[in-house]
Amino acid sequence: MTFSDIDNGWSGSDTLLSRDEFEAAIRAVGAERYHDKHPFHKMLHGGELNKGQVQAWALNRYCYQAAVPRKDAALMSRVHNRDLRREWMHRVVDHDGLGEEPGGIERWLVLTDGLGLDRNDVQSMRLALPATKFAVEAYVRFVREEPLVVAVASSLTELFAPKIHKERISGMLENYDFIDDTVMAYFRRRLNQAPRDADFALEYIKQHALTRREQDACIAAVEFKCNVLWVQLDALRHAYVDGHIPPGAFRPEGA
Amino acid sequence: MTFSDIDNGWSGSDTLLSRDEFEAAIRAVGAERYHDKHPFHKMLHGGELNKGQVQAWALNRYCYQAAVPRKDAALMSRVHNRDLRREWMHRVVDHDGLGEEPGGIERWLVLTDGLGLDRNDVQSMRLALPATKFAVEAYVRFVREEPLVVAVASSLTELFAPKIHKERISGMLENYDFIDDTVMAYFRRRLNQAPRDADFALEYIKQHALTRREQDACIAAVEFKCNVLWVQLDALRHAYVDGHIPPGAFRPEGA
Repeated sequence: MTFSDIDNGWSGSDTLLSRDEFEAAIRAVGAERYHDKHPFHKMLHGGELNKGQVQAWALNRYCYQAAVPRKDAALMSRVHNRDLRREWMHRVVDHDGLGEEPGGIERWLVLTDGLGLDRNDVQSMRLALPATKFAVEAYVRFVREEPLVVAVASSLTELFAPKIHKERISGMLENYDFIDDTVMAYFRRRLNQAPRDADFALEYIKQHALTRREQDACIAAVEFKCNVLWVQLDALRHAYVDGHIPPGAFRPEGA
Repeated sequence: MTFSDIDNGWSGSDTLLSRDEFEAAIRAVGAERYHDKHPFHKMLHGGELNKGQVQAWALNRYCYQAAVPRKDAALMSRVHNRDLRREWMHRVVDHDGLGEEPGGIERWLVLTDGLGLDRNDVQSMRLALPATKFAVEAYVRFVREEPLVVAVASSLTELFAPKIHKERISGMLENYDFIDDTVMAYFRRRLNQAPRDADFALEYIKQHALTRREQDACIAAVEFKCNVLWVQLDALRHAYVDGHIPPGAFRPEGA
């Protein structure tokens, strides 16, 4: 059963939204549900976490980073239009790199290195929270199986990303003595990449969601994606702030 | 039901093949079944086809070319190892291009342009033989669903490709006045690309097929892939040499 079989988010209306209404509805999802609203993010940016908690965040978030090129390749594998595949390939290259370009996952590992985490622990994902891995794989599955325009829409949390990245760069540099400029390279790079990708995807769904049901499914896809991100922070908060670390998961020194 | 559920090609033996025996078994598949043995190819290279028949070949073969980056992206979408994704991404770039590089599909369209075919007819695939499209999509499905090492093995017909490409370049240039050097750019480029990719994939399956059943499934994958190619030439021969063009398919002028 796919997401759209059980809940494609249809509003019950058949009235097509205008381009502007459609965009506003997408943006409203972010205003309500994007993970910059999550208490764990406020703690992360505000310097309220200890190093072990920041380690837990970076180690878990790696799972998401590592899944992104797989979900983008899954999307490409469904696309018959070469121009769209070529456009989408930039995303894979942004994360995996190509030739001399190391890519965003490598920059994420520079961050986890800087936090003193072992690369094998990070890359094996064996210490990550199961909730993280379930959420991330739900995203890959969504992009592989949902209608193409809906799969594209699920990337649109990138509309909301530059703000959180800016906050993160300044907040984390200011508040943590174990964070320096080098390890923030990932976020600095995403400041340029995310808006370009988001603009493209937004225009794509405006052109290709041709019925109200498709528009509503696109809006629901952004909600779904916000849930993918939110769940990860709920799990981090429960395990590493409230102190309920599940069996087998990363235990910071002294925890 | 996937290919390996119904026939993974298991020989019944549990004795692991040596690296050399395994490679020899893969190569033996090509010696027996690669489409350079097909009568239609001998006709193509030998100058025995008329222009309409060469058009039919190029128009149908476009479906295969256009599917290749989708099957390669499908493989990447399943790969958790970043190094393997980065290696495989070259294949997508080789076909789709990236940035200034137009890629192999564009070079194929230069060939179909040169043959006087309309790009819309070619790219829409609406005039292609159904047998072509079924075979090509079976390949995409195979790579998406089969065990990863078996999916990699299915690319190994590239071991046999340089010989056919060399024959094609010289044979077609010599034998057809409607073929010139420009339109053969696709094949010239593949002379370098295919051996690099084939060497990588061959080493990969030697390292990752760790049981005889996996080795046999890899050998069967090369047979499967040879069938994908052979079926396309059977369909071309039946339609355009024997003269049984099915409803809706391309009809050369005067046919």
